[in-house]
Amino acid sequence: MDERIRKHAETMVDWSAQVEAGDDVVVSVSEGAHELGVAVAEELGKRDANVVTLYSSDEMDRAFLRAHSEAFDEDPAHELALYENADSVLFLGGGRNTMATADVPSEKRQAKSRASQGVREARMDTDWVSTVHPTRSLAQQAGMAYEEYQAFVYDAVLRDWAELADEMAKMKTILDEGSEVRLVKEDTDLTMSIEGRTAVNSAASVAYDSHNLPSGEVFTAPHATEGEVFFDVPMTINSERVRNVHLTFEDGEVVDFSAGQNEAVIEEVLETDAGAKRLGELGIGMNRGIDRFTDSILFDEKMGDTVHLALGRAYSSNFSEGSEGEANDSAIHVDMITDMSEDSRMEVDGEVVQRNGTFSWE
Amino acid sequence: MDERIRKHAETMVDWSAQVEAGDDVVVSVSEGAHELGVAVAEELGKRDANVVTLYSSDEMDRAFLRAHSEAFDEDPAHELALYENADSVLFLGGGRNTMATADVPSEKRQAKSRASQGVREARMDTDWVSTVHPTRSLAQQAGMAYEEYQAFVYDAVLRDWAELADEMAKMKTILDEGSEVRLVKEDTDLTMSIEGRTAVNSAASVAYDSHNLPSGEVFTAPHATEGEVFFDVPMTINSERVRNVHLTFEDGEVVDFSAGQNEAVIEEVLETDAGAKRLGELGIGMNRGIDRFTDSILFDEKMGDTVHLALGRAYSSNFSEGSEGEANDSAIHVDMITDMSEDSRMEVDGEVVQRNGTFSWE
Repeated sequence: MDERIRKHAETMVDWSAQVEAGDDVVVSVSEGAHELGVAVAEELGKRDANVVTLYSSDEMDRAFLRAHSEAFDEDPAHELALYENADSVLFLGGGRNTMATADVPSEKRQAKSRASQGVREARMDTDWVSTVHPTRSLAQQAGMAYEEYQAFVYDAVLRDWAELADEMAKMKTILDEGSEVRLVKEDTDLTMSIEGRTAVNSAASVAYDSHNLPSGEVFTAPHATEGEVFFDVPMTINSERVRNVHLTFEDGEVVDFSAGQNEAVIEEVLETDAGAKRLGELGIGMNRGIDRFTDSILFDEKMGDTVHLALGRAYSSNFSEGSEGEANDSAIHVDMITDMSEDSRMEVDGEVVQRNGTFSWE
Repeated sequence: MDERIRKHAETMVDWSAQVEAGDDVVVSVSEGAHELGVAVAEELGKRDANVVTLYSSDEMDRAFLRAHSEAFDEDPAHELALYENADSVLFLGGGRNTMATADVPSEKRQAKSRASQGVREARMDTDWVSTVHPTRSLAQQAGMAYEEYQAFVYDAVLRDWAELADEMAKMKTILDEGSEVRLVKEDTDLTMSIEGRTAVNSAASVAYDSHNLPSGEVFTAPHATEGEVFFDVPMTINSERVRNVHLTFEDGEVVDFSAGQNEAVIEEVLETDAGAKRLGELGIGMNRGIDRFTDSILFDEKMGDTVHLALGRAYSSNFSEGSEGEANDSAIHVDMITDMSEDSRMEVDGEVVQRNGTFSWE
């Protein structure tokens, strides 16, 4: 076995999920993630954990959903009981065809998702961690050769996470102590209040309330957004390729928008509900192991020297106890990314924190 | 998809497991059984069932078990809760290497098995059904080409089960009304009492308390065995190839034994415990879709015109309520098969029921 797979598994079980002896762990293995599954099983064995292994098959999901009447039972008892009794859930993504469920009607997917809310909440109540095993299908989606993509994924995942967590702690301190963030670059001059919010140091570990591997971002929940912002990183939203989105905010709400490609997708997003016009997240990508965009939000939004803003739902982890009611609420959470590596700056309370891809402490 | 896979899935979900709308179903997919998994998912979708899909990976099991300290927790809460809340469990066997766990110490396997007794009981308390998807690995084990093996499996599985169930009901009636069974062939003259026992018509359906697909046997629990019996079908016991076993019984117990190959394995089996020297099962194979031995007990023991006897544990389904205490108890249940297609006869209370592979009603 490729030694990097073993290290990936060790990072996931040890740093990310912090599995201990006697923990009841659910491992969910995607169709193409068998090898990572074997390595994770070994790590869980070493720690004397208890394991239930799920098969997450897009092709089985497709067959099931297409054949189903759409009258889904709410929160099936056996599935709910599994997660309610689990300490950790490890999602090993990595399929064999990113389009495997392309012909499942979206109404059916949504109906299934609505019927599974309790299951989802029980799952999110565990120490869950999500990662991907590099498969040929994901390499194709990223526009890369297989070996090239493997190197890309392991560069992103196999970091010195403790060191990066220390680095990100500096950014968290700046945001926690600051009141206003300003982003300035081409077609962009945006100010957001972060008053009263707590930034999350997303260091790819449940110890940091961070559930993605890789991670490497510091995020908070902005409000009272004013000005304009340009997102120069292409992205896929609702299965459509969207480019060069430009948004104008007044009083925290989007009042004007345009896009260089598939503008209608942005319109659809904004019209979802009232919260969809407001920001739910400001994230600062600090994982410099991610050196290019691969059309995968798991990686793109953590890329070093990027900033992403999400329309829609905010994370409760940015709110102190009792103030969660202030969190922007929406059915959607759509991330959009802007490159901060050149001709750009980010200020907090008028002080430059990042200029042209270099942080103030560097 | 091969139409036979769809029919296999339909037979499993419909005839065998009798899944209904709203049932909470666990599907366990082995490493090589993906395609059958997809077909089963479609059938379960058609029936509006609720599905949790497990991945049964020998390679993950091996990695986990080898790395584990052997201090296994008893009945992990999440695993137990899953099965306690399930209506049906569908095991889709079919791996990629029948030797995948060959280097796991057997003490570790046994320790894991001992610690999982509650989980196993909860699983067996559901409407469970076990089948195999024909894989290249199983073809190899059977000594067959892949396409040849596929044809073999589907001949065994895709029967007219209702018709076979009617046929087997005749044998069940004979056994239920009879008191003594006698087997006569080369080196064989064995009599067993079946007084007070109920035969099971194992028609590959939970409706018949039958949990294997394929099935096609009628079995009961003999006692007071006297005489000698010769098993001319080769078999694998404790991973060893065993041939030409000859047993002599007095007062229901084995008093003498020999084997043409790996006799020590039989000795080991007989010494397990007191119940290991007594018979737990007499089974009459009636699935004529199975036309050869493939070194797989799931198929071999159901082959038309064979009889198998098992040393060790009896099934409670052969005992009326209150009389289960009479069932032979043992840690083992080892099946051995004898060919009844030629120069042989089976009598019940002195009447010939089968001679040279032809039943009395044929």
